Amino acid sequence: MPQDIYDKVMMLAKRRGFIYPSFEIYGGVAGFYDYGPLGSQLKNNVENLWRHFYLLKDNCIEINTPTITLYDVLKASGHVDEFTDLTVDCKKCKRSYKVEDIIDKNISVEQAIKEDTIKCPTCGKKLSDAHPVNLMFSTTIGIGEGRKAFLRPETAQGIFTNFHLLYRHSREKLPFGIIQVGKGYRNEISPRQGTLRQREFAMAEAEIFFDPNNKSHPNFDDVKDKKLFLFDNEKEFEIKVKDAVSKKVVNNEALAYYMCLTQEFLLFAGVNPKKFRFRKHGSNELAHYATECWDAELYSERFGWVECVGIADRSAYDLNAHIVSSGVDMYALRKYDEPKILNRKKIVPKMNVLGPLFKDKAGVIKEHLEKMEVKDTKKLSIIIDDKAFTIPKDCYEIVESEEKITGEKFVPHVIEPSYGIDRVLYFILEHNYSEGKKKDEEYRVLKLNPIVAPIKVGVFPLINDKKLVDIAEDIDRTLRKSSIATYYDDSGSIGRRYARMDEIGTPFCITVDHDTLKDNAVTVRERDTAKQERKKMAELVAFLKDKISF
Amino acid sequence: MPQDIYDKVMMLAKRRGFIYPSFEIYGGVAGFYDYGPLGSQLKNNVENLWRHFYLLKDNCIEINTPTITLYDVLKASGHVDEFTDLTVDCKKCKRSYKVEDIIDKNISVEQAIKEDTIKCPTCGKKLSDAHPVNLMFSTTIGIGEGRKAFLRPETAQGIFTNFHLLYRHSREKLPFGIIQVGKGYRNEISPRQGTLRQREFAMAEAEIFFDPNNKSHPNFDDVKDKKLFLFDNEKEFEIKVKDAVSKKVVNNEALAYYMCLTQEFLLFAGVNPKKFRFRKHGSNELAHYATECWDAELYSERFGWVECVGIADRSAYDLNAHIVSSGVDMYALRKYDEPKILNRKKIVPKMNVLGPLFKDKAGVIKEHLEKMEVKDTKKLSIIIDDKAFTIPKDCYEIVESEEKITGEKFVPHVIEPSYGIDRVLYFILEHNYSEGKKKDEEYRVLKLNPIVAPIKVGVFPLINDKKLVDIAEDIDRTLRKSSIATYYDDSGSIGRRYARMDEIGTPFCITVDHDTLKDNAVTVRERDTAKQERKKMAELVAFLKDKISF
Repeated sequence: MPQDIYDKVMMLAKRRGFIYPSFEIYGGVAGFYDYGPLGSQLKNNVENLWRHFYLLKDNCIEINTPTITLYDVLKASGHVDEFTDLTVDCKKCKRSYKVEDIIDKNISVEQAIKEDTIKCPTCGKKLSDAHPVNLMFSTTIGIGEGRKAFLRPETAQGIFTNFHLLYRHSREKLPFGIIQVGKGYRNEISPRQGTLRQREFAMAEAEIFFDPNNKSHPNFDDVKDKKLFLFDNEKEFEIKVKDAVSKKVVNNEALAYYMCLTQEFLLFAGVNPKKFRFRKHGSNELAHYATECWDAELYSERFGWVECVGIADRSAYDLNAHIVSSGVDMYALRKYDEPKILNRKKIVPKMNVLGPLFKDKAGVIKEHLEKMEVKDTKKLSIIIDDKAFTIPKDCYEIVESEEKITGEKFVPHVIEPSYGIDRVLYFILEHNYSEGKKKDEEYRVLKLNPIVAPIKVGVFPLINDKKLVDIAEDIDRTLRKSSIATYYDDSGSIGRRYARMDEIGTPFCITVDHDTLKDNAVTVRERDTAKQERKKMAELVAFLKDKISF
Repeated sequence: MPQDIYDKVMMLAKRRGFIYPSFEIYGGVAGFYDYGPLGSQLKNNVENLWRHFYLLKDNCIEINTPTITLYDVLKASGHVDEFTDLTVDCKKCKRSYKVEDIIDKNISVEQAIKEDTIKCPTCGKKLSDAHPVNLMFSTTIGIGEGRKAFLRPETAQGIFTNFHLLYRHSREKLPFGIIQVGKGYRNEISPRQGTLRQREFAMAEAEIFFDPNNKSHPNFDDVKDKKLFLFDNEKEFEIKVKDAVSKKVVNNEALAYYMCLTQEFLLFAGVNPKKFRFRKHGSNELAHYATECWDAELYSERFGWVECVGIADRSAYDLNAHIVSSGVDMYALRKYDEPKILNRKKIVPKMNVLGPLFKDKAGVIKEHLEKMEVKDTKKLSIIIDDKAFTIPKDCYEIVESEEKITGEKFVPHVIEPSYGIDRVLYFILEHNYSEGKKKDEEYRVLKLNPIVAPIKVGVFPLINDKKLVDIAEDIDRTLRKSSIATYYDDSGSIGRRYARMDEIGTPFCITVDHDTLKDNAVTVRERDTAKQERKKMAELVAFLKDKISF
């Protein structure tokens, strides 16, 4: 089988230190990958670029919560019951399979089960025990029975469970957005698709809280005339952000705004616009918490269109669930323009009657009465310790009073852009990979955006002459002091050194030559144009900083 | 009890959004903390500062490996057997305790067990079942029996298991250093000490590989005259780096160099030099992998001296362990100046004799013979499938040949600075916290280094006049576009807004007033001096960038 671009990218990734399979010296485990020296810098740079879009451009704030998550949180959020894959086991082969992975691509899982057409892909045996398997890694906090916990399937729950604190931090004004960047976990039954389907993965999520009556975004005007690339499961088309909303293609401004932000981030990071689209989830695809969801899909030669970002309207699902389960007040307040005055009727117990009548129970009965609604006084019977007490009318008064109400409580809605960072990283490599021949040798270039490139500049002395080496080393040190990532290289021809840098996406190379001793200038070569320019050494830091930062 | 500084710092940390206890709405769990909006930025900034020291100043490279770690890796590294705490269980109280936590501070754990003086701190019952409990969180990869795994107790093993790839990446030259920044886990029996003893924590580790014959560092000369603050378990003293090495206070240059780098990083990040020292581990304190270890200790009013960084000489311990367990070649090569020519004797089997004599076993016997050393031919008996075969002399020849040897293989030694980032963050808060009164109101300041401060600049319109607000909002946007973290505030008096910013360590505040409309300048106020200066708006980005970056 000839190598496809996935093979080529992954071979380059391993050879040059972007991505290694994990635990390889112990035989490896599917679904785990390491980022090597270059991959980890690409990852840092892409995550920081993402922060630039969400923290600085969109005014979100960041938090950071543990990956180990208490059972109670994930029971409330629905993950204990709903975060599952339908699975079949082959007793003969002693293996389990995700049903979706092993059925004909043209039929649905429901159909395959109904028509009983699921077969073991290894031995061909008919399999009919399809059952849901939870996909969370579980563990225990403390020793002995300890407390049950999971590795988080998403970073979002750490945000929801802090909503009341974050609402206060944001001075009780909506909308506000919270981001989290970190690990997520999914104990896949049998992961395929290499680096695109990992069991431990890097996520970047934003949860933006809105008043459900007002899903507009303060920056919507800045993006309304930009075009979104959409796919409606039949055809691909372009549409202006404002038209997508007015024509109800996308449900609300907030969702459309974050789709646009996502598109801008991905294209800036280096995704090929011709291999980018948003696809809307069908109602049978939606996660248990979502009312609408658009996937940013990227095209891969081997795998076709792959979901890399999901932008979901989670409505009030999660906050509601945590309010119910924890009993904590996680509401927001919609302030009235003017406070409203309400007439309220209240039950006021008379202790001088209750006391003699109910003795030691009088205190408990008083508390019960105070909590009751006036409309319930018709059949006034209170049950204490399984015993019913009938309360005569002379035990309390009904008092009318005025109350000032400043607003009404509600549960905010959430729009969530959720990024699979590992997938984005892979696609940045695939979409920027190109190859050819130079002087009969194979030649590969990664055309990475200088802002995400792991190494910003190669620094070379033309030859190994101490005078040139001293200057080159000095330039290298100076650039590093200014936080510019360099790679110093003094071995092989300049052509070969350029080739090494091109292959890992380094946008600039600096060569110190004999003229440098006279003119204090160096040759700066640009990766994509191969253009060479003389630059004064004193100007290098400013020149490079301008290219690699905001 | 009056509040001590720990209480004060933690109250500020929760109120202003640095640190929240995790899962609080479900009752919380000891040993887990969230970083809020400000805490997460402080953490990012401190980690990036750390990277500046290790990646750019020290030329290390970074990798990023999974937190879920295969059993085989941690069995080989010794953690399955050695990463334990001696524990006692009280059957009456149904609780377990780490022995170290509940015994008299003046006696050792060994003594307490020998003298049988361990008592339950809750009920007073004598406890004598002290037994080691492993501190790793365990989980399973895949379903059914799956594969046993743990959450990593340190990031280091992800580096060691990739040594052969990283050695090649570094062009087979020593020394080279690899860093990793990420989560570590330790399932504490019953964590106390709040945020200083977490079950899931942020680590930053560097593993620098050296030739054991040459533990010098290329940058040693730059630091040799700097002073280290040491504590020899009796007295504190200062000593020059070079003297610490020459007087054998510190075993080698490499260890002393990384102690110095650690000291520089911590003091730069904002640790109080009067509350900083290195303490050498006694031989009974050393981790199972270490031959020498110095802790960077920071002083806390409540907890006394607390270990925040360990700088250990792990020698060849880990690489050796993985070579033995995995069988993979993880040696480095010490190249000879000139290749050596060695005379080697080899066993060459004669198949024409072996074949007829041993029939179907002949092939296996041939392989055995080829692997044997010539000196072993005296008693030539080979065991195959539990059966011994005696091999007559005419079945093989001994042939002498010349071999060219370019160098000798060895297992590199490792120096490891290992940072507990959460502890460093806490101490940056405690050491920079100060309080007082201003106009009879309590007043708190965090004197954070501008490079680590979560918010770099507060932006205020003097009053809520649209003309001023427009300019202030515009400045805010411009700064954010240049990646400068701002906080826009238009509520309350300017004094109160300064106070809010001082309390979270914001180094600069910018106020737009009516003069701004005429002179295009704003008032810039510096936190620590309270000095106010007029600056042209066009110069703000450059002025601030200079203060907050390298």
